[in-house]
Amino acid sequence: MELTVYLAGEIHNPWREELRTQAIKWNLPLTFTGPMEDHDRSDLIGEKILGKQPTTVLRDETASSINNLRTQILLSKSDVVIAYFGDQYKQWNSAMDAATAITLNKPVILIRDEKLHHALKELANKAQLVVETPEQALKALAYIFE
Amino acid sequence: MELTVYLAGEIHNPWREELRTQAIKWNLPLTFTGPMEDHDRSDLIGEKILGKQPTTVLRDETASSINNLRTQILLSKSDVVIAYFGDQYKQWNSAMDAATAITLNKPVILIRDEKLHHALKELANKAQLVVETPEQALKALAYIFE
Amino acid sequence: MELTVYLAGEIHNPWREELRTQAIKWNLPLTFTGPMEDHDRSDLIGEKILGKQPTTVLRDETASSINNLRTQILLSKSDVVIAYFGDQYKQWNSAMDAATAITLNKPVILIRDEKLHHALKELANKAQLVVETPEQALKALAYIFE
Amino acid sequence: MELTVYLAGEIHNPWREELRTQAIKWNLPLTFTGPMEDHDRSDLIGEKILGKQPTTVLRDETASSINNLRTQILLSKSDVVIAYFGDQYKQWNSAMDAATAITLNKPVILIRDEKLHHALKELANKAQLVVETPEQALKALAYIFE
Amino acid sequence: MELTVYLAGEIHNPWREELRTQAIKWNLPLTFTGPMEDHDRSDLIGEKILGKQPTTVLRDETASSINNLRTQILLSKSDVVIAYFGDQYKQWNSAMDAATAITLNKPVILIRDEKLHHALKELANKAQLVVETPEQALKALAYIFE
Amino acid sequence: MELTVYLAGEIHNPWREELRTQAIKWNLPLTFTGPMEDHDRSDLIGEKILGKQPTTVLRDETASSINNLRTQILLSKSDVVIAYFGDQYKQWNSAMDAATAITLNKPVILIRDEKLHHALKELANKAQLVVETPEQALKALAYIFE
Amino acid sequence: MELTVYLAGEIHNPWREELRTQAIKWNLPLTFTGPMEDHDRSDLIGEKILGKQPTTVLRDETASSINNLRTQILLSKSDVVIAYFGDQYKQWNSAMDAATAITLNKPVILIRDEKLHHALKELANKAQLVVETPEQALKALAYIFE
Amino acid sequence: MELTVYLAGEIHNPWREELRTQAIKWNLPLTFTGPMEDHDRSDLIGEKILGKQPTTVLRDETASSINNLRTQILLSKSDVVIAYFGDQYKQWNSAMDAATAITLNKPVILIRDEKLHHALKELANKAQLVVETPEQALKALAYIFE
Repeated sequence: MELTVYLAGEIHNPWREELRTQAIKWNLPLTFTGPMEDHDRSDLIGEKILGKQPTTVLRDETASSINNLRTQILLSKSDVVIAYFGDQYKQWNSAMDAATAITLNKPVILIRDEKLHHALKELANKAQLVVETPEQALKALAYIFE
Repeated sequence: MELTVYLAGEIHNPWREELRTQAIKWNLPLTFTGPMEDHDRSDLIGEKILGKQPTTVLRDETASSINNLRTQILLSKSDVVIAYFGDQYKQWNSAMDAATAITLNKPVILIRDEKLHHALKELANKAQLVVETPEQALKALAYIFE
Repeated sequence: MELTVYLAGEIHNPWREELRTQAIKWNLPLTFTGPMEDHDRSDLIGEKILGKQPTTVLRDETASSINNLRTQILLSKSDVVIAYFGDQYKQWNSAMDAATAITLNKPVILIRDEKLHHALKELANKAQLVVETPEQALKALAYIFE
Repeated sequence: MELTVYLAGEIHNPWREELRTQAIKWNLPLTFTGPMEDHDRSDLIGEKILGKQPTTVLRDETASSINNLRTQILLSKSDVVIAYFGDQYKQWNSAMDAATAITLNKPVILIRDEKLHHALKELANKAQLVVETPEQALKALAYIFE
Repeated sequence: MELTVYLAGEIHNPWREELRTQAIKWNLPLTFTGPMEDHDRSDLIGEKILGKQPTTVLRDETASSINNLRTQILLSKSDVVIAYFGDQYKQWNSAMDAATAITLNKPVILIRDEKLHHALKELANKAQLVVETPEQALKALAYIFE
Repeated sequence: MELTVYLAGEIHNPWREELRTQAIKWNLPLTFTGPMEDHDRSDLIGEKILGKQPTTVLRDETASSINNLRTQILLSKSDVVIAYFGDQYKQWNSAMDAATAITLNKPVILIRDEKLHHALKELANKAQLVVETPEQALKALAYIFE
Repeated sequence: MELTVYLAGEIHNPWREELRTQAIKWNLPLTFTGPMEDHDRSDLIGEKILGKQPTTVLRDETASSINNLRTQILLSKSDVVIAYFGDQYKQWNSAMDAATAITLNKPVILIRDEKLHHALKELANKAQLVVETPEQALKALAYIFE
Repeated sequence: MELTVYLAGEIHNPWREELRTQAIKWNLPLTFTGPMEDHDRSDLIGEKILGKQPTTVLRDETASSINNLRTQILLSKSDVVIAYFGDQYKQWNSAMDAATAITLNKPVILIRDEKLHHALKELANKAQLVVETPEQALKALAYIFE
């Protein structure tokens, strides 16, 4: 049995890379997918494909169409979602991805520093598991294969 | 025909009250529901019902259990969701409520100031309609009854 | 028992009015809903609510957001859909409404002149019933109450 | 990860072939499916299998039964749908396929020339992405694998 | 609380009437729906509404379109289905209605004489309850209101 | 807005009566449903309706057919489920009712003494709220109407 | 692409064997599943596994539990269902299997001699395709791979 | 065709091992999954991953979060569930797993000694098959491949 794990959230720190490296070390049969991790590429993908847009709102709209296309397809193919919340940015699309997965009956593991707990409390309550580090999330997935 | 409208999001400005007043003036057959609007009541409801909790995380957890119970029931009874994003706070539960409604195939009207658009772009793309004021949201609902 | 009937399709001839009149004559417990029947109102509703848009595509996009909001809510509240196809216009949203209803497991009655059959053959095959006049559609609904 | 892409719509120009060729050049792990592209074969398949039919409507009905069987199975196996609208024909089954996919929660990429936008505006609003050329659609799919 | 009960199956004996009379005597808050009970009306409804058909198969096809329209709508509005099997006829549409209801997660009460059990064994196993008389079926519904 | 509450679990103490009385005192718009509370009636209902059965297993099977018919219908009509676990009996049908409701996306409030927590921990984790007394459960429902 | 085809219905003639042979000849990527074709094995499987039962109804009940287990699993893994109706027996489980598949949104191809059409008319109307011979059914599946 | 079988229930006797051994002997294409079978590992997994918890209820809560994560993922990947009930412990999570599988439309085979039948009667009625030994359960699965 293999599992596909969608890695939602924070793209400005190397948590995905750490997780992928650790999973290989532990020899876990996991395939990881996730959003575009290059912030500029993600913001500009709309204009890159569809050409210059007349307004910033439209540039955003074309980019988000394509980012959401990517997310919808990858989420639908995932068995479990790990969502990492950092202390910067609004991260509304991370919250959206997590809630979408939960509503589609895919379990979500939330990673967040305890100091973020208050603001995240409703989402934490809906997640299947709340941890503080990527390694803890990976240990929980490893437990499934024991 | 009557519609039930869940008013998600921002609880620190009077937008819900304005919307309710306007709906009555326009004689629209709308019933409004929404989260607890008294911030302290919402944060303390867990301890109020279940008693003093040993840690702040647990106080939050008991409160969010009860707030999510409320939201799950009211969302399931709603025909459409209006979600208002302000410029303060993380508002992750607002994003969660909106994404949950969309995934349950209930249309969402997003209210946000244009300057928030970039951070909200993926959620905006999934919403059925994006407006800037509560009055615009209400006009869109009024149009359904014409 | 009462039924709610969504009347999709053609807005440039008086078939909805005839159907409503006939239903009252026959004393049928039917409530009818449908799209905005005033073509200009439907095309301009986006700018009417959200203000002047920079391009025609955007004017269309804002209008269709609000028209689809209306349709999604009314379709979700309907028990059966009648879709009328005339011989003018592309009527792609009529085909979309019919297919959406069928996929949501709501039965669709298709009204079309026999000469349109070839172009409509795949949709006709998925509809629960194909008739040529609104009166035939209404007779089929009347049969449910016998 | 591999994706299966259903190519709905227009069968009288070589857009599918171009798309398949380009996907191979770009080395994308995509499998393409779609409707019968030989118009006559598609129109006559009913009589070919079931024998001569008494009326043209019946010839159409037997053909559409078999075409819809094909579409239902291939759509159910696809991860994403690309729907191409040209400027000829009614193309109601293209609109039907797109709306069916959307309602089944499969993302749709719409290809259409901008001059068709007005007639397609409600469908465009429900599609996850609207582009003008097959190459743009393919670039959006390629982005998922970056 | 009121329940809507769809009475599927056998239309050539007065079991529905007995059930309706008994329910009134026992003062049960039940609304009964069901198929057209006049056999000829049911067989001829297609031609009655759509006009003379060229072949018997087509006469049947038009009739069944309209009978299925009726059944789909009434089944979707029912809380529970009672299906009565007699010892004559093929009664394939009764089996179809029962299986459809079960798959839609609506409980089915099967009424059949014990001597029919062998032929009905797979359907009996999927029904929520198997009884031998309409009065037993009604007693089971009455129990829900105790 | 009114809510229908299914009261699952323990039938040998008067918790349902207390809850009903309290709800009236607090003037809450709640309708309560639940299993047959007379233990003997519940165990014997099969033979009562279907006649003497040859074995005890069959007596149980006929009774459970009818009890499950009742539960399936009442659960499908409920907005929220309260499940009370006492310290006697196996209460496997209480666990089944709670898990069924959760899987159907209906929120469950679990009432149990803290000393039962270990055995109930997996079910408690899936419930939306865990409390120790019926009054706490009712306070949580009352909060929805504030 | 490969398809899994569940072959429901008639087990007393060699239609399944003919179909399997023909599919190999035509080199079609089809996997066939179906019910137990040995009538006695199917009737006796309950007692074979669970031991002698006290009554014939119970022997039937244990057999049908196991036959339905088989059907539920195989149906859930199939892409399309072919259902063959002969002129003998009640064949209620064939009708049940076909209706179950249709309600689960799996297309059904019905094979029946035209003289059975009247009794099958409601089921025929819900099937995606009605043919008279297994070879016609197979040709329709072959068409999907063209 | 291969089947994945989730083995729910009793972890203090070697029934899973016997079943796995027997399946290999009979050469059945079955993959077995199930809960953590080491009781202490299962109870302590929360603290093992998340660190020492302040109360026993919290230790249980963290453990059950991770056990339910495991179960939700493995259940979602299973084709059929076998649930074994012994005569010790409350086994509420076994009942929960069985009811969850049934509600998700996955068939459940219940193994229990006949003397447990009364307490299990409602769950037995919802299971697709009730047997007394693991070998009987395996024979039923073997029958699917005949």
